[in-house]
Amino acid sequence: MSGQVLEMTSEQAVDANFDLTGWSRVRQLRVEQALSTWVAPDAPAGLGDAMRYAVLDGGKRLRPLLVLAASEAVAPLDTAVLRPLHDDAAFRARQDKAALRAACAVELIHAYSLVHDDMPCMDNDVLRRGKPTVHVQFGEARALLAGDALQALAFELLTPNDDSVSPGVQAQLCCLLARAAGSAGMAGGQAIDLASVGVKLSETQLREMHRLKTGALLQGSVMMGAACGAAAPAALLALSTYGAAIGLAFQVVDDILDVTADSVTLGKTAGKDAEQDKPTYVSLLGLARSQAYAQELLAQANEALQASGLHDTRALHALADMVVNRKN
Amino acid sequence: MSGQVLEMTSEQAVDANFDLTGWSRVRQLRVEQALSTWVAPDAPAGLGDAMRYAVLDGGKRLRPLLVLAASEAVAPLDTAVLRPLHDDAAFRARQDKAALRAACAVELIHAYSLVHDDMPCMDNDVLRRGKPTVHVQFGEARALLAGDALQALAFELLTPNDDSVSPGVQAQLCCLLARAAGSAGMAGGQAIDLASVGVKLSETQLREMHRLKTGALLQGSVMMGAACGAAAPAALLALSTYGAAIGLAFQVVDDILDVTADSVTLGKTAGKDAEQDKPTYVSLLGLARSQAYAQELLAQANEALQASGLHDTRALHALADMVVNRKN
Repeated sequence: MSGQVLEMTSEQAVDANFDLTGWSRVRQLRVEQALSTWVAPDAPAGLGDAMRYAVLDGGKRLRPLLVLAASEAVAPLDTAVLRPLHDDAAFRARQDKAALRAACAVELIHAYSLVHDDMPCMDNDVLRRGKPTVHVQFGEARALLAGDALQALAFELLTPNDDSVSPGVQAQLCCLLARAAGSAGMAGGQAIDLASVGVKLSETQLREMHRLKTGALLQGSVMMGAACGAAAPAALLALSTYGAAIGLAFQVVDDILDVTADSVTLGKTAGKDAEQDKPTYVSLLGLARSQAYAQELLAQANEALQASGLHDTRALHALADMVVNRKN
Repeated sequence: MSGQVLEMTSEQAVDANFDLTGWSRVRQLRVEQALSTWVAPDAPAGLGDAMRYAVLDGGKRLRPLLVLAASEAVAPLDTAVLRPLHDDAAFRARQDKAALRAACAVELIHAYSLVHDDMPCMDNDVLRRGKPTVHVQFGEARALLAGDALQALAFELLTPNDDSVSPGVQAQLCCLLARAAGSAGMAGGQAIDLASVGVKLSETQLREMHRLKTGALLQGSVMMGAACGAAAPAALLALSTYGAAIGLAFQVVDDILDVTADSVTLGKTAGKDAEQDKPTYVSLLGLARSQAYAQELLAQANEALQASGLHDTRALHALADMVVNRKN
C-alpha cells in the first residue's frame, strides 16, 4: 500500500477546485480579530504591548488553520456524534467557538516559544517576520515575562468562565495543549536542540528532536481541532498520523529553506543552521534526499486522510501541500 | 465589626490544640512525593534535571498547603453538596486526588516564576533557598526552558487523561490557575515590579503591584482548593477575602523580613530591595506601620474565615498566622 501511496503526487490529493487562499483568508481574519480582542489589551506596565507585538499581524497562522481545518473535518457528519441528540446548528456553533479558542491558544504557545527562542541566551536572533524581535523592541526582562504571560493566556482562552465550551472539551483541550507544549513536546525538543549544537546526530535522533520541537505542537493543533467536535477512534488515529507527518515535514522543509531561500523571503535570518553548526536534515541527508523525504511525508499525510473516513478533508490536504511546497 | 476584629489577636483565632507543624508535615510529604513522581523524570537533554532541581526539596510549600487546607475546609459538610447523591468516602477520595494535583500545579507555577525571576535579565540572583539558582547551576538557556516546561506541566497535572478528576473540576482549576499566573495576575505584577525600580509608588500602586505579583497566586491557591470540592457562594466569597488578605500580608511581611532578617535565615539575599531601590511597604510606611498593617490583614483573614460558615477552618487560620508571624 505504501508503495502506491508514495507514487501519489500532491496534485492528485489536493482538490484543484478547493481555494485554500480564500478558505484561509476568512479564517486568518477571524483568528486575527479574536487575538486582537483576547491578547491582553489591559495588561499593565507595557506587558500587554509586548504580548500584542509578539502575536498580532504575524505569521501564516498555520497552527490555527490546522485546528480549524481539523474541527471542520470532524464536524457534523462524523458517525461518533449521536445526531438525533443534537441540534446540528447549535452543536456546530458551539464547536466553532471552541475551535476558535483552540486556534488562538495554539498560536499563543507558538508565539511565546518564538519570543523566548529569540532571546540572547537562546538563539540570539534580532529579526523575526521582518521585524525586530521582542527582546530587541521591549528589553529582555519584558520579553521573558511576555512569553510567560502568553503561555498562561493560552490556557485562559481554553477555559472561558461561561457555558460557551463544555467543561469536557475545555479539559481535553488543556490536556492536549499542555502535553504538546511541555517537556514531552516543544520544550523538550528545544532542550535537545540546545544540547545538539556541534553534535552529530543520527537520523533517528534528529527525527526525535523535531518530533518534539516542532511536530508536537503541529500534531497537537490537529488533535485539538478534532477534540472540539466528536470523531470516531479511526478518524482520530488518522488525524494523529496526518499531524505527525506534516509536523516532521514542516521541519524538513524548514531545514531545506534555510539553505535554499534568502533572508528577505524567509522573513528571518537564512543560513543560521550551518552558521550555528546545528544538525539539520540537509546536513544529514543532503538536499535532494531531504526534498524527496518531504514529499514522502506529504504522501503519508494524504494517505492518512484518505483512510480517515472523514467527509471533507480538502482543507487538511491543501494545508499539508502548503507545508511541504511553501517558499518561506 | 472591623474595629472589633482588629482588636482580635492571632492567638484567639488560632486553635491552640491544632498542630500546624504535624498537619503540614503529612501534607508536605504527600506533595513532595507527588512532585517527585510527576516532575518530568524522563524529560530529555538535562531538562528534567533542571526542572526537578527547581522544584524538589525546596520551600515551605505554602501554596500547596493553602490548596489542601481550603479543599479540606469545604469538603463533606458543605451545604452546597447534595449529600444524598454522593457516597461520602468516594467523593472525598476524588476530591483529595484533585486537590493534590492542584497543590502540585500551583507549586510548579511558583517554582517556574522563581527560576525566571532569578535570571540575569530579571533580578540576577545567584542564591535561592540556600542553593545556587537554576541558571547558575544549569545555564541560562536551560533555566529559561525549564521554567517554560514547568508552567506547561502545571496544566498537564490539572488535566489527567483518566476519570480521577471530573472534567468540570479540571476546567475550573485550569481557569483559576491561568488567571492567577497570567498578565492579570503574577506575570502582570512582575511587569509592574520591573517598571517600578527607582519609581516612587503610592500605597495604592504598591498594593496593586503586590495583589498581582504575589497575591493572585496565593488567593488562587485557596480558590483552587475550594474548587476541588463544593462550596456555597458565601463560603467562596469568604475564602476569596481570606486569600486576598493573606496574599497581601505575605508581601508586607516579605518586605519587613528583607530589612529585619539576615541572608542565612532568609535562604536568599537579604537587603536586596533597598539595594535595588525597589518600592516596599517598609520604605513607604516605615517598619512599625508595616508590622501593624500585617497584623491588620491577619485579622481580616480570620474574620473572613469566621464568617464563612465553613466547618473546620483551623488549618486555614493557622496558615494565615504562619504567613504573618514567620521568621523567613
